[in-house]
Amino acid sequence: MAVRPLLDDETAPPEARAVFEEIRAARGTDYVNNFWRALAADPALLRQTWARVRHVMAPGALDPLVKELLYVAVSTANGCGYCVHSHTAAARAKGMTDAQYAELLAVIACASQTNALATALQVPVDARWDAQRE
Amino acid sequence: MAVRPLLDDETAPPEARAVFEEIRAARGTDYVNNFWRALAADPALLRQTWARVRHVMAPGALDPLVKELLYVAVSTANGCGYCVHSHTAAARAKGMTDAQYAELLAVIACASQTNALATALQVPVDARWDAQRE
Amino acid sequence: MAVRPLLDDETAPPEARAVFEEIRAARGTDYVNNFWRALAADPALLRQTWARVRHVMAPGALDPLVKELLYVAVSTANGCGYCVHSHTAAARAKGMTDAQYAELLAVIACASQTNALATALQVPVDARWDAQRE
Amino acid sequence: MAVRPLLDDETAPPEARAVFEEIRAARGTDYVNNFWRALAADPALLRQTWARVRHVMAPGALDPLVKELLYVAVSTANGCGYCVHSHTAAARAKGMTDAQYAELLAVIACASQTNALATALQVPVDARWDAQRE
Amino acid sequence: MAVRPLLDDETAPPEARAVFEEIRAARGTDYVNNFWRALAADPALLRQTWARVRHVMAPGALDPLVKELLYVAVSTANGCGYCVHSHTAAARAKGMTDAQYAELLAVIACASQTNALATALQVPVDARWDAQRE
Amino acid sequence: MAVRPLLDDETAPPEARAVFEEIRAARGTDYVNNFWRALAADPALLRQTWARVRHVMAPGALDPLVKELLYVAVSTANGCGYCVHSHTAAARAKGMTDAQYAELLAVIACASQTNALATALQVPVDARWDAQRE
Repeated sequence: MAVRPLLDDETAPPEARAVFEEIRAARGTDYVNNFWRALAADPALLRQTWARVRHVMAPGALDPLVKELLYVAVSTANGCGYCVHSHTAAARAKGMTDAQYAELLAVIACASQTNALATALQVPVDARWDAQRE
Repeated sequence: MAVRPLLDDETAPPEARAVFEEIRAARGTDYVNNFWRALAADPALLRQTWARVRHVMAPGALDPLVKELLYVAVSTANGCGYCVHSHTAAARAKGMTDAQYAELLAVIACASQTNALATALQVPVDARWDAQRE
Repeated sequence: MAVRPLLDDETAPPEARAVFEEIRAARGTDYVNNFWRALAADPALLRQTWARVRHVMAPGALDPLVKELLYVAVSTANGCGYCVHSHTAAARAKGMTDAQYAELLAVIACASQTNALATALQVPVDARWDAQRE
Repeated sequence: MAVRPLLDDETAPPEARAVFEEIRAARGTDYVNNFWRALAADPALLRQTWARVRHVMAPGALDPLVKELLYVAVSTANGCGYCVHSHTAAARAKGMTDAQYAELLAVIACASQTNALATALQVPVDARWDAQRE
Repeated sequence: MAVRPLLDDETAPPEARAVFEEIRAARGTDYVNNFWRALAADPALLRQTWARVRHVMAPGALDPLVKELLYVAVSTANGCGYCVHSHTAAARAKGMTDAQYAELLAVIACASQTNALATALQVPVDARWDAQRE
Repeated sequence: MAVRPLLDDETAPPEARAVFEEIRAARGTDYVNNFWRALAADPALLRQTWARVRHVMAPGALDPLVKELLYVAVSTANGCGYCVHSHTAAARAKGMTDAQYAELLAVIACASQTNALATALQVPVDARWDAQRE
């Protein structure tokens, strides 16, 4: 299923094809995954999104693998199946071990459990954590 | 606000006070934060939750700081203000730098954006990522 | 905080005051809680919402207490602090025991954990559960 | 689609097969559903999750059928399609009638509607519901 | 997949078929989409839901197309794939242009990003926006 | 409560103060709301976010008021209280009438209700809406 056709090199507008080429060059593969092809009908949003993802996921104070793990965690909590698939694959490509994956799943499950409890009990935030307190 | 009173050493049942002592010993502080005090009326759930959190957040294939970052990411996406406060504080206590925090926020924001786009466009998962394919 | 003023008997339009009276009569109390007062600026939505809640929460194939427990469960998962407070109070008013509340919390926490795992692993639905299969 | 292969008796590690056997014995059926098979690559998480679900869903102060209804409610609000399917099937197996299911759906729909309104209006919690007030 | 069979004119109860006819008449098409067919086993909920949708989506102070855009926005944030598909189709049927759709997607993505940031930082609401302040 | 101090003109770094000035100039007011002050410790994210919001919310194929309504809808479904407050205020500043606001609330409530039903029933998407079908 898809709400908008997935464009390829023949059907995408030239500005979108140019982004496809940047994606291929950055990743060293000819493959452009469906997310970018679904965005291709709107080259401006495609370019903005690709530029933002590239910038945010680049090596920095956090390791690129850690960033992928964070992406999987957010995507799971947001219930985005596509993003769970794509970023779990990306984490593996960046070296995620089975042991790391097991711990990622355990943290996601544990946090979801305590998030629900804190919400169900409406626990008030401890005053010591308020950055605005005098 | 709170749905159930926050118990302290005087009002908590003995089985809950025993868990309070374990939390103090494990953390090297006398302070027991509100989450555990809100759970204290139900010592069985208090003990199960504390045991699970301790086990999951212990050092392993992932660094304890990375686990805290993941916890903040999940808690943000789940909209749990209490957990965002407590685990951001925990991440800082485990050495999270300002630069790491900035990148954490950037990844959470970027993932939330692309999660929304993938959901809005209902992008089909690329066949190559299906672990069940032949 | 509030996005719109909470109206009372003096400030609410007559059509809203009439709904206030129905709420009082149905509940046998003079107190009208903030939710209805926030809706009062829009009497049509106030009336539709009150009529729907009354109809849905009435005794039927499910016990009114069970319906309140379900309401708390949905409100927790949706992160609605107001509704968690109001329906936990309603469940207590309908006789929820501490033991029942403890189990309610445990089910919510457990479901949130397995929901997260099923989403993280993108587990395909077992064919036997598909109501459309031949 | 799936992020990780679904293991069966031949491909699962021995510790996971042992949990499969416990599931079969507890349920009186040879069938092990996909959720457990997706967890099987990580026997520790599989065992912890199964033990938790068994414990939480056992008869207690709440009826097992009520617990299944709560599970469906949470899973729906969390948007977990897998869990909606599996726990609706479990509720039917435990005797949920069509009339009970109709009321379950009505409560979920009604709560989702009022959750959204309370959030949109940012209704402040009534002081009388605050367990921490003096 | 489906949790309950999709009923058609032959299998639906008479009260549900009557609603099917109203849907056909209101839309000027013979086609009844799956959502209504999934509700048909419960004619009371089917009728209530259809009546509510019709009433809410009718022309008023907001344009019907704007209402469809809002529906797509809510459905995306709630992660309802079915509703995203159906209301994007409805928006197109009501004249949504490609440029409008591009801006809709951009607003949804932008809001999701700043929602996540405001939640991650737990930004306190500015006092000037509180409708309850003196 | 806040996770990070809200900076003002005296405490914000120069690059952040420069963005504060742009916000003031663009809005024609001296007031800079808390969201931007919470971002100010990270001038790069502050600038990126402000630039994105400005670009996306500018007049285009959709009216600025419609964009604010969409922002409120997404923020409500995402449970972001801060954003609900700020964008409802922005919608009013852009001329939202009481009648428009009433219809906005009604659409959000109605969509939340049918989103929940479609998810609870796991309604399969109608084939006619699949943009990828031949």
